[in-house]
Amino acid sequence: MIGDMSYREIEIAAPRKVGITELALRDAHQSLMATRMAMEDMVDACADIDAAGYWSAECWGGATFDSCIRFLNEDPWERLRTFRKLLPNTRLQMLLRGQNLLGYRHYNDEVVDRFVDKAAENGMDVFRVFDALNDPRNLEHAMKAVKKSGKHAQGTICYTVSPVHTVENYVKLAGRLLDMGADSICLKDMAALLKPQPAYDIVKGIKDTYGEDVQINVHCHSTTGVTQVSLMKAIEAGADVVDAAVSSMSLGPGHNPTESVVEMLEGTGYETDVDIDRVKKVRDHFKKVRPKYQNFESKTLVNTNIFSSQIPGGMLSNMESQLRAQGAEDRLDEVMEMVPVVRKDAGYPPLVTPSSQIVGTQAVFNVLMGEYKNMTAEFADLMLGYYGESPAPRNEELAKKAQEVNKKEPITCRPADLLEPEWEKQVEEASKLEGYNGTEEDVLTYAMFPGVAPTFFEHRDEGPKSVALSEAALKAAQEGQANALSGPVTYNVKVGGNEHTVSVEPA
Amino acid sequence: MIGDMSYREIEIAAPRKVGITELALRDAHQSLMATRMAMEDMVDACADIDAAGYWSAECWGGATFDSCIRFLNEDPWERLRTFRKLLPNTRLQMLLRGQNLLGYRHYNDEVVDRFVDKAAENGMDVFRVFDALNDPRNLEHAMKAVKKSGKHAQGTICYTVSPVHTVENYVKLAGRLLDMGADSICLKDMAALLKPQPAYDIVKGIKDTYGEDVQINVHCHSTTGVTQVSLMKAIEAGADVVDAAVSSMSLGPGHNPTESVVEMLEGTGYETDVDIDRVKKVRDHFKKVRPKYQNFESKTLVNTNIFSSQIPGGMLSNMESQLRAQGAEDRLDEVMEMVPVVRKDAGYPPLVTPSSQIVGTQAVFNVLMGEYKNMTAEFADLMLGYYGESPAPRNEELAKKAQEVNKKEPITCRPADLLEPEWEKQVEEASKLEGYNGTEEDVLTYAMFPGVAPTFFEHRDEGPKSVALSEAALKAAQEGQANALSGPVTYNVKVGGNEHTVSVEPA
Repeated sequence: MIGDMSYREIEIAAPRKVGITELALRDAHQSLMATRMAMEDMVDACADIDAAGYWSAECWGGATFDSCIRFLNEDPWERLRTFRKLLPNTRLQMLLRGQNLLGYRHYNDEVVDRFVDKAAENGMDVFRVFDALNDPRNLEHAMKAVKKSGKHAQGTICYTVSPVHTVENYVKLAGRLLDMGADSICLKDMAALLKPQPAYDIVKGIKDTYGEDVQINVHCHSTTGVTQVSLMKAIEAGADVVDAAVSSMSLGPGHNPTESVVEMLEGTGYETDVDIDRVKKVRDHFKKVRPKYQNFESKTLVNTNIFSSQIPGGMLSNMESQLRAQGAEDRLDEVMEMVPVVRKDAGYPPLVTPSSQIVGTQAVFNVLMGEYKNMTAEFADLMLGYYGESPAPRNEELAKKAQEVNKKEPITCRPADLLEPEWEKQVEEASKLEGYNGTEEDVLTYAMFPGVAPTFFEHRDEGPKSVALSEAALKAAQEGQANALSGPVTYNVKVGGNEHTVSVEPA
Repeated sequence: MIGDMSYREIEIAAPRKVGITELALRDAHQSLMATRMAMEDMVDACADIDAAGYWSAECWGGATFDSCIRFLNEDPWERLRTFRKLLPNTRLQMLLRGQNLLGYRHYNDEVVDRFVDKAAENGMDVFRVFDALNDPRNLEHAMKAVKKSGKHAQGTICYTVSPVHTVENYVKLAGRLLDMGADSICLKDMAALLKPQPAYDIVKGIKDTYGEDVQINVHCHSTTGVTQVSLMKAIEAGADVVDAAVSSMSLGPGHNPTESVVEMLEGTGYETDVDIDRVKKVRDHFKKVRPKYQNFESKTLVNTNIFSSQIPGGMLSNMESQLRAQGAEDRLDEVMEMVPVVRKDAGYPPLVTPSSQIVGTQAVFNVLMGEYKNMTAEFADLMLGYYGESPAPRNEELAKKAQEVNKKEPITCRPADLLEPEWEKQVEEASKLEGYNGTEEDVLTYAMFPGVAPTFFEHRDEGPKSVALSEAALKAAQEGQANALSGPVTYNVKVGGNEHTVSVEPA
């Protein structure tokens, strides 16, 4: 009886369960389409996501807060409450920049407390807390606040490559995060640099050192084309949860496809509880949505240059536009050679927001004006400890120069220890804004984005504004290039010998 | 001294070497752009491919021969000689459909001998020989011919999934191929169905059974997003060579990126001798070329449906167009459920040319006209053994019906044993064609493509005709959709109240 024969005859012990965090609602569109996805394009996927059996759904934080108020006229707090309603059975997860919250500077501890409380109150379950320099002191207060709110505090290791970023040091860092009470450890590979062997070694090192019970989540981007293998090796080493994005929202600068991660485990001794049929419905939803954001998409599908240059894609395009603005595009190669020099001088920070911008801009300045002839205020702050402790000692001479430039003393304390209480001032300023709704949430929005929040408050009533292609423009685009016009285009056209200026747009 | 610290402190024994076969010149463009790449778009990459240190460069066979004469007005034999000249230090590799050669029927043994001789004489080194049903008798003569010519005979296992396709059976099949004198075994996963665990088990099984010295090459497509991991596991199990395509010619229905395969091995105990800087030059070349063929590209990036439906992408689009022609698009789901039924009745053939077309068409007929009410001649032939032995017993009742339909007896011998000598007839017919150049190569071209060769011979003197986008059209396409016109487009436009027919094209 052929039908009764089993496909594989090798005996497998009871498979170990591996959880999946679905990234479609946050990092996937942040990475693939500049965080531009409107809530209306996510709502219809939520029932299937909620029923699919994910360990968690990342859906908030990172750049989504900024994008909501800057580009989409959407209240990020309302977005969070909507997710809470639509995903009643799923852990909601967010990415939190430690003491920076979702902004770009360090906040006073009280602001951190209030932000975490409000996020928890509005429905957040899992807080993935990281710091660009991996300085644990920049995570500590946020982690404590999460613990106090009774939610899941995930301590994060930003993965990078340098002479001081050894497996041993990563394992030690995990220990510091566990000492802070981390409910789990995230190994976060934001630049797709994590190769299979270090993925295995770091996860194994943490498990061997602190026990099998330590939960480890692994987050990889897919840009370099190696990290699906890294997820496999991390799982073999004991990783408990891996991050993925549904296939129609995957690859390129994004993440490995959820379905592929689920399928690759068949017969391996590991398995997920994810319902692949539900995932396919999520896929079909976003398959329709993704083309509407094609104008925001990067053309990069695979890029392994990052391994040698250490320069993530976003940072590269930043530097290119800076050079273009100076008419110096031809000096990109010099800048790319300068980046490792600057990074070494700064004590090998991981290159991630904001360190990537700070290092990149200084490298551009060095090439255009001479090495450290002009030091940016941000680079000087970095050299003086105002972003935290660097992974390795910084160049001492340059630190002295930074002192002159910024007229500040170097610090060794936790940067936020120097901040004055600021909550009352934030409340006062927010209260004066047109459209302010009197909630603590609005104060937090203002505190994090004082430049953008006023305009957002003023226009909030007009409701969300999608930046996606309209149905007509999308249809035109899909009908092929021969007649693709996404907006009015003006041509000079000769008709019957006479020249006309003609404007054409999709009907 | 930070600079002197080593990044990883774990000791690794001398790494085992893994070879890479570069697919950019054959299967990559066959899979990504319908085999349309013109030789002129490959020439400039050859010096870097030749210096990169690949185990081999696949560059001929499969559908390239057909495409050359059907679409590109290019002599495939001349293409082979050009590759030989441009890649003097690299093994040239081809894909050969066993007794089918590069055509779509079985040929008499003498034709097989002459084809292999001529391919070898014109520069081919490695012959990857396969049969769609995995019937070793359909490979045997071609393998013998390759051995006789002193070249590398690679016996191929087509990977598929069914109750009879067990690891044990694959290992047995490898044994049959080794008995035929195979210099190496290829595990060929043309539908991206090979998951990591079976990849490991099959390679391990072959090595354990026939010895570590048996060379195993692994070929995977990337459509399902799991096979980069499968390559890793195959390497861990002892695979000697893996196939990949340079990143700018990778992913989707194609293959895993060469650079990523090389990079993923760092620190694992395996390494390649591939010069990544050369590979990057190859990448840069094809990065410029690929957009010129965008009109032939599939939109599929990841698709894991194949795991449940068993229907590869090419087969699906075939069935869709058959249904559309009958105004029955809405019955696709029924057809997709019918395919596994038909496949089982036919004894679980792998679904690959030509079995995929035969099974797919019969499934469409079954849905539209009732189950086996109409049996195609090809399906009847399949049921009667005229394509070879099926992996499992066929449905006996249907075999009887096939006998009535085709008015033929079932056979159990090697199908080619029934063929009469045909070489003299082929020579005679070819000789009469306008433009025939009197070579045995031309006779072989005619023998394989009697419908297309006459026109090709007649027009050969006009030289290769590229089907790529022109520079102007590509430039227009790259300038974004807002003004993308790939050729003259005619609009009806109202200007100042008067209607005009206006033709617009890129300046």
